[in-house]
Amino acid sequence: MSELRKDPVTGRWVIISTDRRKRPTDFRLESVQIAPDPTCPFCEGHEGMTPPEILAVRHNGSRPNQQGWDLRVVPNQFPVLRVEGTLDRQGEGLFDKMNGIGAHEVIIESPRHLEQLADMPDDAIERILWSVHDRMLDLQRDIRFRYIIAFKNHGTAAGASLDHSHSQIIALPIVPREVRDEVDGAKAHFQAKERCVFCDILRQETREGQRLIAENTDIVAVAPYAPRFPFETWLLPRRHESRFESSPRHEYGSLARMLGEILRRMNRTLGSPPYNLLIHTAPLVETAGEYYHWHVEIIPKLTKVAGFEWATGFYLNPTSPEEAAQVLRDARA
Amino acid sequence: MSELRKDPVTGRWVIISTDRRKRPTDFRLESVQIAPDPTCPFCEGHEGMTPPEILAVRHNGSRPNQQGWDLRVVPNQFPVLRVEGTLDRQGEGLFDKMNGIGAHEVIIESPRHLEQLADMPDDAIERILWSVHDRMLDLQRDIRFRYIIAFKNHGTAAGASLDHSHSQIIALPIVPREVRDEVDGAKAHFQAKERCVFCDILRQETREGQRLIAENTDIVAVAPYAPRFPFETWLLPRRHESRFESSPRHEYGSLARMLGEILRRMNRTLGSPPYNLLIHTAPLVETAGEYYHWHVEIIPKLTKVAGFEWATGFYLNPTSPEEAAQVLRDARA
Repeated sequence: MSELRKDPVTGRWVIISTDRRKRPTDFRLESVQIAPDPTCPFCEGHEGMTPPEILAVRHNGSRPNQQGWDLRVVPNQFPVLRVEGTLDRQGEGLFDKMNGIGAHEVIIESPRHLEQLADMPDDAIERILWSVHDRMLDLQRDIRFRYIIAFKNHGTAAGASLDHSHSQIIALPIVPREVRDEVDGAKAHFQAKERCVFCDILRQETREGQRLIAENTDIVAVAPYAPRFPFETWLLPRRHESRFESSPRHEYGSLARMLGEILRRMNRTLGSPPYNLLIHTAPLVETAGEYYHWHVEIIPKLTKVAGFEWATGFYLNPTSPEEAAQVLRDARA
Repeated sequence: MSELRKDPVTGRWVIISTDRRKRPTDFRLESVQIAPDPTCPFCEGHEGMTPPEILAVRHNGSRPNQQGWDLRVVPNQFPVLRVEGTLDRQGEGLFDKMNGIGAHEVIIESPRHLEQLADMPDDAIERILWSVHDRMLDLQRDIRFRYIIAFKNHGTAAGASLDHSHSQIIALPIVPREVRDEVDGAKAHFQAKERCVFCDILRQETREGQRLIAENTDIVAVAPYAPRFPFETWLLPRRHESRFESSPRHEYGSLARMLGEILRRMNRTLGSPPYNLLIHTAPLVETAGEYYHWHVEIIPKLTKVAGFEWATGFYLNPTSPEEAAQVLRDARA
């Protein structure tokens, strides 16, 4: 018998389908293969192929946009939004629009073409998190922006257009819908109970353990109760904080360790799957401090989304989070 | 410069990206190819391979679950939800769940393996619409159900697991999120203006014509103002009605003609793409008669959804609806 489950944050229902139950070996796994590419614009030595860097972690004595770096942040060469111009909100009869003001940056996570996030040492992963932190703080000073999203597409099936390990940051003049739903849901929970819904989730999951994947001093990895996708995993800070970019220093190290560990567990059990990774932090401008709780979501790409999902927003997940958690818990990190 | 646009019904923002502008020839088109399959359970003569039929349009003298039919509706052999049992709503600490009560049916649209919806005569398409109508009316009598969705996945890339032309109907014990958002958005519009937002859209689109694709006596086909996907198309009845299944008889004929016409235009201009098609009708139980307006959505599958979209619910569409409407308007039907 299938089960319908409701996400306690957004109120979104999913079907956990036990009749169509899938264990890791049942998915048609599509491992990510990184091919060498002599024309890759992200490789060390090809700095001239990207727009000038905004931020970089460089070796002593190296010069901007030259060799000798561990990480670079550059503007996206094909941005979906642009920084230039004045935000122009307009009506068109019934309809509302605004021009595409925003920022779109790329974090080049390594100088080496074949190095993948999961295989990086903890301090290299931590360096990436700090670059997100620093870029978020900088972009926040632009009062046109309402939201900053950091995300990673790993593998072609997850939408990556270049193999070389990278993440993206987009600053938006609006609060996008998934975040709006999370923030509104968290607010409603807080108004009803005077508690953060994510803190409530942390308490229940660490106590019960069924959906717990791993934990360290600061970070807890869980399979969410009502996941849209098989093996969807959330990393939550134990300490309540609405903004990723306002966390105490030691949490970035803890998050880096946990992130590497979870990605390696996924690679071992799911055959190095394509995945999407994202950081949800609180919106700018509005105050969500009491009720929102930043977190990381990792979504391995194992299934296809079909008409039913588009039509309804109602996701069919063939693997229960309890089973996914157990598989990932039992995997070597 | 890109443009941000807001859907007037759900309030969802999308980016219409002109820098990454794509004309039909720029998509890596993946034409749907139907291969003969001697073991297809939906072919005439294989009636024993499906569960017994719930509804069928049969030739005079033919017997149930035998040859001699134009259309059959059967229970899905691998249902995501099941009819048997009592709906059991439960809490699990913070979380809410219920068992997977529902109905999951398949409409086999033709006895012939290779016949596709776009190529069927109007009266065959109308027959399919009537079967949806009849099944919706029947399923509504089950008071456990809150929503009935009818949809079609055409082509593997759109999630179809069998080539033989078919649609699906699912009855759900909850109102799914996309529908909830549409209904709530339409209600808010009605409360503010005492008008149906879909009627407002129809007035503006038929007056302005930029996003108009085709129209007949009863049905208008438009590219929506803020489409999530390139060449997304909505078919709206001119006459206000919240329920698909409560439409006057002649509208099914008009809808069938328009549906065939739009699918043929898409096949000509987009190279017989995979697509999802869905009917949005009002939820059961609640009364949405004044402010909801049933419609059909057609989404050709031309792009991949990546991390940014999952992270934000914020869609990046490389083709403006004005351009898509013009391409489809100019195509031979």
